[in-house]
Amino acid sequence: MKVAVGSPGTWSGLLLRVGQCAFAGASIGVMLSAFGFSSYTAFCYLVASMALQILWSFGLLCLDLHALKFKRDLHNPLLVSLFVVGDWVTATLTLAAACSSAGVVVLFVRDVHFCKKYPQLSCGMYQISIAMAFITWLLVAKSSLVMFWILASG
Amino acid sequence: MKVAVGSPGTWSGLLLRVGQCAFAGASIGVMLSAFGFSSYTAFCYLVASMALQILWSFGLLCLDLHALKFKRDLHNPLLVSLFVVGDWVTATLTLAAACSSAGVVVLFVRDVHFCKKYPQLSCGMYQISIAMAFITWLLVAKSSLVMFWILASG
Repeated sequence: MKVAVGSPGTWSGLLLRVGQCAFAGASIGVMLSAFGFSSYTAFCYLVASMALQILWSFGLLCLDLHALKFKRDLHNPLLVSLFVVGDWVTATLTLAAACSSAGVVVLFVRDVHFCKKYPQLSCGMYQISIAMAFITWLLVAKSSLVMFWILASG
Repeated sequence: MKVAVGSPGTWSGLLLRVGQCAFAGASIGVMLSAFGFSSYTAFCYLVASMALQILWSFGLLCLDLHALKFKRDLHNPLLVSLFVVGDWVTATLTLAAACSSAGVVVLFVRDVHFCKKYPQLSCGMYQISIAMAFITWLLVAKSSLVMFWILASG
């Protein structure tokens, strides 16, 4: 199997995982510090989904570190299948969470003008948190495409 | 290249495309017949995204029919790459549209109780339309996974 950028057990793969954890963490942090987020299901789901993403990415980050330290090869078909399923599930959940929250924010800002009517709602914070969630999704999508490619071409 | 279920130029592939067109069309039909959908950006985006999905799936449906009629082989790396990109882009847009609309409907039903306050809003229709959009996404996801698999293992 050829080694692609971002494959498990490489520095680029490790960097992708660190990025996923960092952006997902930032997204949760910003959302938790925004006033009134807990009244909206979509924002709560975003926090839950980002937490799941952090758990998964952190697990693979540790595995990558272990593989780099002990020069282990993680290109084992069984392991890669597991990574593919996990990455696809978390990527889909992350995209779903980011999009549903984005739908709600667009509704608040453009359609019902809640943000103007209720200035105490932290619409700006919601938007920043959602932007972070989208960046997390891009990074997870990159990982999952690489994993799927390794599995299919292996 | 081995022939997978749902690959281009086969009966199963054709059936998948027909299903995509049918469910996307049904989703648009139900949404257009729901009162007041045009006041909400997310629902308009759902209609636009489903229309794009129909265009793409219908194009590939015609190509599949042509390949079946004249016994052409569509497993050409260049063609498959094009199908992969198109399928992934439309699948992502479809999921994004379905999730953002779902986020808005959950907000209406559970968080701000718009559906009870304004019974003239056709919340039931919105939900049916979004369910159809999710089924469309599942069918497109199946197509795109098969395409990507063919490309990667080819």
